[in-house]
Amino acid sequence: MKIKHTAILLALLSLASQRGEATTLDALLPLDGWQAPAKGVWSATIGDLSNELRYTDLAAEAPRRAALEALGEPSFPFPPKGITYSRNDDGRIMVRIPCAPDEKIYGYGLQLDRLKQDSRVLELKVDHWSRGGGRTHAPVPFYISSRGYGVFFNTARYLKVYNLVSNRKDAVQRPPEVDRNPPAEEIAEQAGPWQALPRGDSVEAAVRADGLEILVFAGDSLLEVVQRYNLYCGGGALPPLWGLGFWHRAHAKHSAAQVEAEVEAYQQYKIPLDVVGLEPGWMTKSYPCTFEWQLKRFPDPEAFTQGLLKKGIRLNLWENPYLSQQAKLYDSLYPLAGSHMVWLGIVPDFTLPEARDLLVQQHKADHFDIGISGYKMDEVDGYDFWLWPDHATFPSGTSAEAMRQSYGVLIQKMLYSDLFKANNQRTYGLVRASNGAASAYPFVIYSDSYNHEQYITGLSSASLCGILWTPEIRSANNAREWLNRMQTVCFSPMAKLNAWASGTKPWDFPEVTDAVREVIELRMRLLPYFYSAFADYHLRGIPPVRAMLLEDRFVNAEAEVLAGKLDSETNPYAMGTVIEKSDQFMFGPSILVAPFYGKQATEREVHLPAGNWYDFYTGAFAGNNTRIQVSAGALQDRIPLFVREGAVIPMLNHTPRQTRDAINGDLSLRHYGKQAGSFDLYEDDAISYDYQKGNFRIRRFEVSTDGTFEEKITGPGPALFGKVTSVQCMAPE
Amino acid sequence: MKIKHTAILLALLSLASQRGEATTLDALLPLDGWQAPAKGVWSATIGDLSNELRYTDLAAEAPRRAALEALGEPSFPFPPKGITYSRNDDGRIMVRIPCAPDEKIYGYGLQLDRLKQDSRVLELKVDHWSRGGGRTHAPVPFYISSRGYGVFFNTARYLKVYNLVSNRKDAVQRPPEVDRNPPAEEIAEQAGPWQALPRGDSVEAAVRADGLEILVFAGDSLLEVVQRYNLYCGGGALPPLWGLGFWHRAHAKHSAAQVEAEVEAYQQYKIPLDVVGLEPGWMTKSYPCTFEWQLKRFPDPEAFTQGLLKKGIRLNLWENPYLSQQAKLYDSLYPLAGSHMVWLGIVPDFTLPEARDLLVQQHKADHFDIGISGYKMDEVDGYDFWLWPDHATFPSGTSAEAMRQSYGVLIQKMLYSDLFKANNQRTYGLVRASNGAASAYPFVIYSDSYNHEQYITGLSSASLCGILWTPEIRSANNAREWLNRMQTVCFSPMAKLNAWASGTKPWDFPEVTDAVREVIELRMRLLPYFYSAFADYHLRGIPPVRAMLLEDRFVNAEAEVLAGKLDSETNPYAMGTVIEKSDQFMFGPSILVAPFYGKQATEREVHLPAGNWYDFYTGAFAGNNTRIQVSAGALQDRIPLFVREGAVIPMLNHTPRQTRDAINGDLSLRHYGKQAGSFDLYEDDAISYDYQKGNFRIRRFEVSTDGTFEEKITGPGPALFGKVTSVQCMAPE
Repeated sequence: MKIKHTAILLALLSLASQRGEATTLDALLPLDGWQAPAKGVWSATIGDLSNELRYTDLAAEAPRRAALEALGEPSFPFPPKGITYSRNDDGRIMVRIPCAPDEKIYGYGLQLDRLKQDSRVLELKVDHWSRGGGRTHAPVPFYISSRGYGVFFNTARYLKVYNLVSNRKDAVQRPPEVDRNPPAEEIAEQAGPWQALPRGDSVEAAVRADGLEILVFAGDSLLEVVQRYNLYCGGGALPPLWGLGFWHRAHAKHSAAQVEAEVEAYQQYKIPLDVVGLEPGWMTKSYPCTFEWQLKRFPDPEAFTQGLLKKGIRLNLWENPYLSQQAKLYDSLYPLAGSHMVWLGIVPDFTLPEARDLLVQQHKADHFDIGISGYKMDEVDGYDFWLWPDHATFPSGTSAEAMRQSYGVLIQKMLYSDLFKANNQRTYGLVRASNGAASAYPFVIYSDSYNHEQYITGLSSASLCGILWTPEIRSANNAREWLNRMQTVCFSPMAKLNAWASGTKPWDFPEVTDAVREVIELRMRLLPYFYSAFADYHLRGIPPVRAMLLEDRFVNAEAEVLAGKLDSETNPYAMGTVIEKSDQFMFGPSILVAPFYGKQATEREVHLPAGNWYDFYTGAFAGNNTRIQVSAGALQDRIPLFVREGAVIPMLNHTPRQTRDAINGDLSLRHYGKQAGSFDLYEDDAISYDYQKGNFRIRRFEVSTDGTFEEKITGPGPALFGKVTSVQCMAPE
Repeated sequence: MKIKHTAILLALLSLASQRGEATTLDALLPLDGWQAPAKGVWSATIGDLSNELRYTDLAAEAPRRAALEALGEPSFPFPPKGITYSRNDDGRIMVRIPCAPDEKIYGYGLQLDRLKQDSRVLELKVDHWSRGGGRTHAPVPFYISSRGYGVFFNTARYLKVYNLVSNRKDAVQRPPEVDRNPPAEEIAEQAGPWQALPRGDSVEAAVRADGLEILVFAGDSLLEVVQRYNLYCGGGALPPLWGLGFWHRAHAKHSAAQVEAEVEAYQQYKIPLDVVGLEPGWMTKSYPCTFEWQLKRFPDPEAFTQGLLKKGIRLNLWENPYLSQQAKLYDSLYPLAGSHMVWLGIVPDFTLPEARDLLVQQHKADHFDIGISGYKMDEVDGYDFWLWPDHATFPSGTSAEAMRQSYGVLIQKMLYSDLFKANNQRTYGLVRASNGAASAYPFVIYSDSYNHEQYITGLSSASLCGILWTPEIRSANNAREWLNRMQTVCFSPMAKLNAWASGTKPWDFPEVTDAVREVIELRMRLLPYFYSAFADYHLRGIPPVRAMLLEDRFVNAEAEVLAGKLDSETNPYAMGTVIEKSDQFMFGPSILVAPFYGKQATEREVHLPAGNWYDFYTGAFAGNNTRIQVSAGALQDRIPLFVREGAVIPMLNHTPRQTRDAINGDLSLRHYGKQAGSFDLYEDDAISYDYQKGNFRIRRFEVSTDGTFEEKITGPGPALFGKVTSVQCMAPE
């Protein structure tokens, strides 16, 4: 075998030199020259990066070096020359990362069907979710491995990854050949059942580019790998406190008066409300857009905005970035736009500072200065027919594909850095496409796909790659589905009802209105807990809502059925299936959330990791490293929530109707189980970016085994919540 | 606007020159230098083709120039500089073909969901069908336009086409902007309803390549365009007569004795049978493969093959091309194989003559010389995880993507040209991937997708691009579905039951066995008619089974609903739908076939084009430019067939059990309607390639209005069928 390999390698080298290539054709070269740009992070570069757009170039904030150092100094997780690469004839750079036989791969951004990405080939491309195959709203080229590392392909090109699926003919070890159709007398000799997908021995990633930077993140656990990624990308986003309240997006054609009436109705039904989103009808023209107020619907935008602000309601404006000829900005942005239109609107080249400046100036004057608090930036995500073509050109010279991969990030950068942060006012918004190194951007991804089970999986998959996701609710087929979806969204980064077309309200299914109100109120009472979880995202890179995979001692419940049932019409290769537990997730440090989903579901299984777990509501012991069945009836129609041993959970004593009512609110601590525990309550001004200069404080609540309580405060920041008035022991007798 | 355009163009030119590019960045240049390689065919080239693989380089036969000349000499269907192109910074060549406002686009190879390709973006890539988006078994980069021309992008690269979907910002004319959310008082001013997909003004096709050849085919009708394409690609394939009989593929694990028993059973049930296919179990190892006989199942392959041949049964062997280490050819093919394996088998580089020679020699000695008649070459079509990666390399230097796009064609070339034609014995086989310029290859495409309605659409879409398709039957949920599918496949290029996993037999649903037998017998009695239709494919480029679109006076029944119903959960853009008539097709010159489909269907609508149409079975007038309802009951469970005015259809007087029994069989002519008509019966030796040297003859049967009959024979070829014994008037009273 060795001789053959050498022969072919020589043949290839000879071919390569005939073609005058500097590098050999498909010769696997060791990738060396690894640098360590931060503790536990290594970088290596192939080729020339001068024409390449890297996601880290677009990151909101610089790496959080002190926090990275606090995570310790692990060693490089590969042998020195273990990662190899090649460059081939048609401009592709390929990187090969060897994998162990038992290794599992997760990640690659927002994946709504499953977390495990072994045996998949993904062409990572910004697109709507529905087509799969690597096309998704946030196709982050970052994966994490069960062996304790992560790899980030830091390029805004289309990247194609082959996850444990490719086998080279010259591989030192390859899986045994198994005859798919052995005669009866040979079956006993077989090494095992034939596999439709013989396992590959590597991740191979290829990109057509002049150059490619690869970043490797080490970690003792999957969580630590994710923390390093997030911290290297600037730390996780910290929204303003108001962003964690309840959101309602009004019907696209509502007027100011109709929006005000809806706000009144929320008060009448005693449903908390912090943010109202205006959908396209707020503009003079939409699809393509003007970004200018439609005065026939909103005759006095400033009075309207300020009026709502006085009621504690923030306004968020829908936009997509494609400009109408009717827009005042059109003429000045025309020469700064790409060759092709989207929905007949021009596409500004937001890599150009002058294009960003034009938009930011207009947005500041027309929106920000009158009190607008944020944006929902729609439709920056494909399909192919709703974006510029791959051959489009942009005045900056940025390629169409780099523009597609990064457009959602560029928009976040513009709105976050140039508009809100430049004016020291926090924002929290939505964007329908994101990508790598976006951890620090205070934007949440959403989708039109509207499958509840997938929406729950999204909460887990987003957490693996520095993305926030909302399983927003729009409508439902029945009261049960409405309640189930409402419960899920209340345990997500953004609790939002999006009624842009449906016109739905939280009380649309009267039989569950009380239960809907109860879960929104629970979110509101948990504000101190959840806001602190976001602070952990910012300070330590720990996602506030996250996959069970990232939990200590969670043995992933996934099982791979390697060979399925042969059926020439539906499964001609007897393909196996991956069964995994992606329908439950963690909310903050201690709460395990297992929503009911499906059209009528009132029962489900919950997998409790090792360690004692308790019912959130009663404190009853629920299990330890086991699977349990839960039913809505036993929970009085509440969402199943479980809390780990020793956890301390701060809750407001009262139920705020808006987040501003939470400020200075007194707290109770719930303490679960028998072991001592603590909680770090984070406080700052909740509204400005002063926390980035250290203007925050941590109140550590320590509860001992006998239920006694101690509080220690560190940091100079302002107070946000009130005093602790009680400690509630949630341990069972 | 003009000024702006100039400004940006200058900016781009300036950028381009800074980068030292030879061509300007995205400047649209007129494509000129058109050559006319044949009458009605024009070619132009962008860039350097020396490293590019063109499909025409792989065509089975040279262009049929005399036949092309016979089609006349149309003029170039565009203004001289109407087609433009650009080259951009990242190696993409883009060609822009302007389209008229009412233009419709069809084609791009095997498309199973619909024929019309307007408003679609397709990344043409060889793959299984299921994922759509341009991935299909035969993604031929050729489209035809309702304005009477076709465009063939003659490249084996991944091509991405934007069909009437892209709009440049500098377009001279663009659709009017329409506000999606106008206030009530502005609705009347709108140019019309908002469109989710504003119509583009061109087809833009882009490819990353050093060079690209574009071929334009003119035609007074869509059919004539298709004829020119087929004739330029060598003319359509002409199978041996035996290929048009009934095919049965045996279970993968059947032994010689079991296969022989199945052949006996066909005789017992009086079901015609011409070909038996052996599935993977005939080999010593399969997945990866050896191509060597499994003697435990087939102890004497030659005796077995010859024994079947004596019974008039041909054998076809299943293979996929990925070699096992157990194969005798492995060592010699190893250095001639690509870098990556498929199913742990090495992938021979069949662009190398020495690789082809090795395989052909072994196949000739072990298969051909003992009497094997053809092959089914499986799994040369992806998915991504079942092919080599895009970064794989091959010893010839052919890129992985060109290899993927052309591998099915390369295999057809090897088997057809190097094995069967070199030995002057016709073959007819199957391959699961094909591509451009493959018209002359006697191979039929098939799929695992198994949706009956889509399988019917495939018969139409394949006909637009020089592809043959079989809607093979495997199993069914009930007797009705079984019969419906059996009827469809009997009016397709290959009437095949594929029982490789299901083990099904034609008589598996006893309640329809007689109806199944009847439709197979009808196919057998129509052999003279259908064989002549294939001769028309070869001689004149007219597909034997084809889309209604290609019929004179067929006004395509498609309707486009431009704006659908808004639903934020299922149709948030109120997308329209395309409704078209792709569930009926033409079989030979005169028979319109409208199968029942769906799980239980016994009724359907049929669209009869302008001109009188008659019921095939009774001669009753059926309609003229109308839609009619048909039901299985009224047809006594037969497939709905309609015949055009004046048609003459030759049928065998007896029902042959095998195609060899058809030879010298006497004929009746059926004459439909009142007008005089004719039929050109084609005859040759039915088995060799001597017809390509002119050794065939045409018997023209002319039937006058009073039913009198005349026969004129031209050409030197041998007789094949017997004399005409009667003319049956099928005109209604």
